[in-house]
Amino acid sequence: MSASTFLGLPALGDTQLAEQHPDVAILGIPFGVPYPSPGHTAGCADGPAAIRARSRRLANFADHHDFDLDAPMLVGSPPLRVVDAGDVDGAPDDGPGNATRAESAVRSMLSAGVVPIVLGGDDSIPIPVLRAYSGSERFTVLQVDAHLDFRDEVAGVRDGYSSTMRRAAEMDHVGRIVQVGLRGVGSARTSDVVDARAAGNLLITARELRTRGVNWLLGQLPRGGPVFIVFDLDGLDPSVAPAVSGISPGGLAYDEAGDLLGGVAERCRVVGAAFTELVPALDANDVSALVVVRMVMRLLAGVDRNR
Amino acid sequence: MSASTFLGLPALGDTQLAEQHPDVAILGIPFGVPYPSPGHTAGCADGPAAIRARSRRLANFADHHDFDLDAPMLVGSPPLRVVDAGDVDGAPDDGPGNATRAESAVRSMLSAGVVPIVLGGDDSIPIPVLRAYSGSERFTVLQVDAHLDFRDEVAGVRDGYSSTMRRAAEMDHVGRIVQVGLRGVGSARTSDVVDARAAGNLLITARELRTRGVNWLLGQLPRGGPVFIVFDLDGLDPSVAPAVSGISPGGLAYDEAGDLLGGVAERCRVVGAAFTELVPALDANDVSALVVVRMVMRLLAGVDRNR
Amino acid sequence: MSASTFLGLPALGDTQLAEQHPDVAILGIPFGVPYPSPGHTAGCADGPAAIRARSRRLANFADHHDFDLDAPMLVGSPPLRVVDAGDVDGAPDDGPGNATRAESAVRSMLSAGVVPIVLGGDDSIPIPVLRAYSGSERFTVLQVDAHLDFRDEVAGVRDGYSSTMRRAAEMDHVGRIVQVGLRGVGSARTSDVVDARAAGNLLITARELRTRGVNWLLGQLPRGGPVFIVFDLDGLDPSVAPAVSGISPGGLAYDEAGDLLGGVAERCRVVGAAFTELVPALDANDVSALVVVRMVMRLLAGVDRNR
Amino acid sequence: MSASTFLGLPALGDTQLAEQHPDVAILGIPFGVPYPSPGHTAGCADGPAAIRARSRRLANFADHHDFDLDAPMLVGSPPLRVVDAGDVDGAPDDGPGNATRAESAVRSMLSAGVVPIVLGGDDSIPIPVLRAYSGSERFTVLQVDAHLDFRDEVAGVRDGYSSTMRRAAEMDHVGRIVQVGLRGVGSARTSDVVDARAAGNLLITARELRTRGVNWLLGQLPRGGPVFIVFDLDGLDPSVAPAVSGISPGGLAYDEAGDLLGGVAERCRVVGAAFTELVPALDANDVSALVVVRMVMRLLAGVDRNR
Amino acid sequence: MSASTFLGLPALGDTQLAEQHPDVAILGIPFGVPYPSPGHTAGCADGPAAIRARSRRLANFADHHDFDLDAPMLVGSPPLRVVDAGDVDGAPDDGPGNATRAESAVRSMLSAGVVPIVLGGDDSIPIPVLRAYSGSERFTVLQVDAHLDFRDEVAGVRDGYSSTMRRAAEMDHVGRIVQVGLRGVGSARTSDVVDARAAGNLLITARELRTRGVNWLLGQLPRGGPVFIVFDLDGLDPSVAPAVSGISPGGLAYDEAGDLLGGVAERCRVVGAAFTELVPALDANDVSALVVVRMVMRLLAGVDRNR
Amino acid sequence: MSASTFLGLPALGDTQLAEQHPDVAILGIPFGVPYPSPGHTAGCADGPAAIRARSRRLANFADHHDFDLDAPMLVGSPPLRVVDAGDVDGAPDDGPGNATRAESAVRSMLSAGVVPIVLGGDDSIPIPVLRAYSGSERFTVLQVDAHLDFRDEVAGVRDGYSSTMRRAAEMDHVGRIVQVGLRGVGSARTSDVVDARAAGNLLITARELRTRGVNWLLGQLPRGGPVFIVFDLDGLDPSVAPAVSGISPGGLAYDEAGDLLGGVAERCRVVGAAFTELVPALDANDVSALVVVRMVMRLLAGVDRNR
Repeated sequence: MSASTFLGLPALGDTQLAEQHPDVAILGIPFGVPYPSPGHTAGCADGPAAIRARSRRLANFADHHDFDLDAPMLVGSPPLRVVDAGDVDGAPDDGPGNATRAESAVRSMLSAGVVPIVLGGDDSIPIPVLRAYSGSERFTVLQVDAHLDFRDEVAGVRDGYSSTMRRAAEMDHVGRIVQVGLRGVGSARTSDVVDARAAGNLLITARELRTRGVNWLLGQLPRGGPVFIVFDLDGLDPSVAPAVSGISPGGLAYDEAGDLLGGVAERCRVVGAAFTELVPALDANDVSALVVVRMVMRLLAGVDRNR
Repeated sequence: MSASTFLGLPALGDTQLAEQHPDVAILGIPFGVPYPSPGHTAGCADGPAAIRARSRRLANFADHHDFDLDAPMLVGSPPLRVVDAGDVDGAPDDGPGNATRAESAVRSMLSAGVVPIVLGGDDSIPIPVLRAYSGSERFTVLQVDAHLDFRDEVAGVRDGYSSTMRRAAEMDHVGRIVQVGLRGVGSARTSDVVDARAAGNLLITARELRTRGVNWLLGQLPRGGPVFIVFDLDGLDPSVAPAVSGISPGGLAYDEAGDLLGGVAERCRVVGAAFTELVPALDANDVSALVVVRMVMRLLAGVDRNR
Repeated sequence: MSASTFLGLPALGDTQLAEQHPDVAILGIPFGVPYPSPGHTAGCADGPAAIRARSRRLANFADHHDFDLDAPMLVGSPPLRVVDAGDVDGAPDDGPGNATRAESAVRSMLSAGVVPIVLGGDDSIPIPVLRAYSGSERFTVLQVDAHLDFRDEVAGVRDGYSSTMRRAAEMDHVGRIVQVGLRGVGSARTSDVVDARAAGNLLITARELRTRGVNWLLGQLPRGGPVFIVFDLDGLDPSVAPAVSGISPGGLAYDEAGDLLGGVAERCRVVGAAFTELVPALDANDVSALVVVRMVMRLLAGVDRNR
Repeated sequence: MSASTFLGLPALGDTQLAEQHPDVAILGIPFGVPYPSPGHTAGCADGPAAIRARSRRLANFADHHDFDLDAPMLVGSPPLRVVDAGDVDGAPDDGPGNATRAESAVRSMLSAGVVPIVLGGDDSIPIPVLRAYSGSERFTVLQVDAHLDFRDEVAGVRDGYSSTMRRAAEMDHVGRIVQVGLRGVGSARTSDVVDARAAGNLLITARELRTRGVNWLLGQLPRGGPVFIVFDLDGLDPSVAPAVSGISPGGLAYDEAGDLLGGVAERCRVVGAAFTELVPALDANDVSALVVVRMVMRLLAGVDRNR
Repeated sequence: MSASTFLGLPALGDTQLAEQHPDVAILGIPFGVPYPSPGHTAGCADGPAAIRARSRRLANFADHHDFDLDAPMLVGSPPLRVVDAGDVDGAPDDGPGNATRAESAVRSMLSAGVVPIVLGGDDSIPIPVLRAYSGSERFTVLQVDAHLDFRDEVAGVRDGYSSTMRRAAEMDHVGRIVQVGLRGVGSARTSDVVDARAAGNLLITARELRTRGVNWLLGQLPRGGPVFIVFDLDGLDPSVAPAVSGISPGGLAYDEAGDLLGGVAERCRVVGAAFTELVPALDANDVSALVVVRMVMRLLAGVDRNR
Repeated sequence: MSASTFLGLPALGDTQLAEQHPDVAILGIPFGVPYPSPGHTAGCADGPAAIRARSRRLANFADHHDFDLDAPMLVGSPPLRVVDAGDVDGAPDDGPGNATRAESAVRSMLSAGVVPIVLGGDDSIPIPVLRAYSGSERFTVLQVDAHLDFRDEVAGVRDGYSSTMRRAAEMDHVGRIVQVGLRGVGSARTSDVVDARAAGNLLITARELRTRGVNWLLGQLPRGGPVFIVFDLDGLDPSVAPAVSGISPGGLAYDEAGDLLGGVAERCRVVGAAFTELVPALDANDVSALVVVRMVMRLLAGVDRNR
């Protein structure tokens, strides 16, 4: 019998991390940090479960031919060892504790030499995840998102989803931040844009990506260098991934996003990733959850080929 | 030309309250108080707009024959004066300020002798609304809800939607609390149920209401006495009002809810009401928004007949 | 960290069954036996994953007050030990092997004294599940379903979902079969109805249940005697559980089904259960999956109180 | 090969009516009469096609056991001959011509001794259909509808869907009109209600039907006498049939409607029927279309047993 | 407190127009002119309310950074004064009166020097709107639409949505008509296409726009000259704006439409605009309403920069 | 009166084929061949009915101007004679018989010189359809599909939808197979890809088509030569046609598919076509069904121009 893991991957118990030291581990973090007045971005707590549920349909196909790669997902030898580490324990009434547990879970993985692929949760999740890397080498952060997330605080909350990239920019181990998919209006004021640019961030709108192409963007990233990926699902166009709260027309196409993730994983060195902001209750025929599954598969294929 | 008001009612400007002193005013409060980790109950901020939007289709019928009353909605003379006071100004980043403004807006209405009918917003909204009544006569609170909302605090938050009825119970001007529609599981622990009963609250499950009937419940309320109604939409069955986050099968039927609201308004004296927890993004053919519209119409009809 | 189990229950590995011998185990069987021409009843393979995914939202509430019980779900001492045993391994291209593995998995549980609660999968799943009981004491089968499922064969297929109850009737260890929820038209011909009655089955339409009441039906079941429950989700009304292929208006109400499951578990002795026919792609706001979760909770509560 | 007919019934060509003189014929009339300003009740033009499409899934079951009848749909000997006569030819730009063709098509059927079962189209369709009966014996009209449809005219339009019952009341061959399912507000003013009652119509709200029961209502209809049925789908509750424009909570239950149609057909003499107001684009899992199919099946079963 | 206006803009009372003379006013016209037989294009009456409701979520962001502009929406000084003038009063039973009131409302605005941005309503709405400009300077009409709308009459109706561009072509104050987005089949016969071309209209299919680009099209419009925009939402692709009746695959992309509106407003002189054919009941996650909101924002930004 | 045929085309009775010998006939084959364990691809049995139902809305427009052709659909003289031959009779319990009847129906058409356009049904349907061509001239097969369908067998089933192209490749009368739209993962293993290439198949991913263009692909097909088209709806992108089970992001755009079908029909000689895998229950606003209707119209237009 098999547990309900991502793509039917082996489940990894808490105590098995050090002894098994897999290459990559899927980790669910089904929560986040809200603001003092309800906005529209909750409902993400069901994200990891919905992504795993949708991935079950592809479990039998995981070693079949992937036409996007013209090969199976994993071809390396010895095989890339990928596991599902389950969800970080969380409680709706313990935000700080949740963040601490999330940071701790990622830190354990890093100690064991495991690359974490996080399934959120809202887009504040990358803050504790990135904090777990403190003391590590410096890495680039590649963010796919419709929004800048560079507010210093909102209503006194400093670790909310509108501040993710500003918090990241403040961390010693975070180098350049590349932000792609920007469009429309959101929480960012023009002063925040000025600040982000002053911090050295590279801002690329969804339209610029369409004009310049994914390969141009890949060229902006350090070949062979370490990169952490923050993938907010609303970076994609609503016709690709409708199940998000911060819905914004004019987003990335499916191929653009897949090429970007696959390309980063092949050309740079992915040290971790977080996929955030899926709201399953808004999905149609589970297509948004499927898109996340496929993005993770592209990422795994790239990591596999880059060993 | 007419503004986009509830049922096409006259819009009331801020300064017109004292001079016009209408009998009843619709007031949108499109926010609430979330918890430190995202749950599933946000998305209510679109509630007032969706309710007003759906009510527009009935605007031309508002003085037609209402078969649920065998008469038009309003029959009294002079006519009941009902207005739409718009929305309380709010900002996603200012929870405390939002609560203060909500309380202040309601207090102004009460000073002018206006009965407020509040459209939420999440189910923490009744806390500031009820606070605005401080100093008034004591009144009964009738809550329609699947949940008890009697936690003392959740994650240090004391004014969240899981504490609404406990906060109400602590107010001097709140008398007995009658809670109807309870079922399934939620944030309430058995100790909270014990506390609620110890506080004198009357707890009635959805099933008990079906067994005993609405008239029995009306008999528990003070004839001619003041009552404030808290109507959390998840008190209704999902087949009646699917667009809620805290969805719970086995809820109140449409007629039960309508008879309850109409009956309270006719037999007691409604001093205010709040309709909460509509999540428009989850609605189907706008039927949940329509149900709220009809509930408000039943309430207005009862108030009209009770003068 | 916790695996993505039903209600956050402990995950049970293959080898842990004998040593831990829990009281009850959840077991996913995400497949079934189709007919030689596509009908409309597939899409159930996603069922177990969707049910587990929806149950995650209730995981924090599982020991809270359940108003349908006026107590928490589990109150017995020592606590009822319930685990999630994951999914039976299956492959889309190995129907016979799947059935063998399903039967074997259930048989292992029975040998270890564990009561299996199966999440399907289509409504042919109960056939291998019931076969695993061969050699056991005789028990009653209680089927909730809109359909009779008493065809001897369809297109030469004898173990398909239209033959489930006929296959059950042929097993030595199956005693009386009680079939409730029947209505409308389906694969059953009048001759099949004659056969079912001749076999001693008690047939109760959804309307008869409404007239006679759940307590009457419970009186037809052996007090203290062993009962296996087959719960085809289309036994419920479409307004309660829309996500089924064999949709049929006029079905059981939510309370009727909950009272029936809870009542059987408290008054008889449940030796196993199978919940079948959820098609997640047809669900709305995941309400059908939630209904299955709640039915399982009612069943667990009854088992807990019946020790 | 078989045409795409209702339930797979034989298709009847224009010229075959007189020679074959079937007992009953299904007839699609996919249009209606709108008002000079767009309301919300269009989209019905797809109705007949959607009803036929959904009925195809039941075609193989049409002679199986119907548990609502405890027998197959048709049991009489010789067999009731039912055919599908296709759709009346219509053009979106020829309202008067459409009405004339509809009336003419029905008149041809009546001349051939065929009972027409009409699939609409909006609820103005019964006007030309009923006109086709001029010169026939007097019959009762049983209307199932949330609305009164008794306006003399709306914006100068006299044959629109808000005037259907008033037009019927003016026809010499129409006797008493029984209107059931009334609730909420609509186009009817209180003066229209007064007029309807003055015309001798029996008005029964949805709630009165629930209180008094279907059998009481059947007792109001002439035993053995001729009855024409106008079934506006919005007479049903939205949880039963969501796909209507004039949606109104609190409507008839599925069993109430089925018993009413089956009962009328068995006890009275059905001279024709029209099912109107299905808007397929608003349907969910095609359940509303299925409900219409089942209503027609109940009607056919009653007609079959009443020969 | 604030009224439920578009983007939270100030509400403008009837009498304030002349004294305040804002630059631009939003005006809802929630009706239209149907044909004598129901087609499929109704349901638009809810359009203005749905657009305003969706815009509320962006109200707090309206002065934030718009990445599509790399600046906030409004940057001019003194600030562009934009107000919401509410809805034209209409009645479902008074088509001619509605048209008269619509024309009169627009005429009042024009007299006060206000540019009207109309939210429909069906696509016949531009006829009375354009009539209000009689006596003004001649202007170009830019129509975005899948359909030609150049029938002389349909069923005797001359002011319906299939005749909008022909009626416009007949007006003295209308100069060249540029029609973009054409594709598929609709009410237009080849003779209508011949007529439109003979009238000097420039017809551009959706595919031609993709090939030639938006800048080419902008070059066809008079630099600095007056232009009225008719934006039928079905001009967009269904994946961008699913909530239309006249749905037609292969339509304009989101960026094409946004660039077109923004470009026209910046390069020409927009004298008015009408957005039509949104059917909220068909929307998914309100994305179509959001697209309209964003189109209006692009238009306002262009007007602001073009002063 | 007219039957519910595709686009309102004349219905063709069984006996009329030889005497009328139309040029093209629409033929519904609403079934297929499933695997021994339920996958996710059923629900297609409603396909032909849903496609016909959606086509009814275009029936009045079928001879209007088609802007994708800049002319009406049919312009040839004498007119192309297209009929609707209804559905092949099938039974859910007779897979082999269904296949035999499907093959026989197509064979009769071919004998009468009629080009069949088949509406499925699942993607195993082309196997019996192609078998009906045995003895005919050799032709190219053009498959549009996300999947390779080149498994030799799955679970012992050789004629299932994962083997369609392998079965085709084995037929003497099938020449080269061109497979376009491939992407993602499915049932195909890398060995199957090797086999398909070894068999001489031309494999083109969806991305290659975007890069090389439709005209390049048309150049790979034999000018003037015979071609049979297998159009699996999941070849299209989910944003174009969401109603499929084997949903796969990154698929063909609407224009690519339309140009391909129209181009093949104009440049080659279409000897038949099959459209498969529509699952109506998963559709949104019937847009997927509409896309199939439009694809058939493009095909008919090409055939018409190629005489």
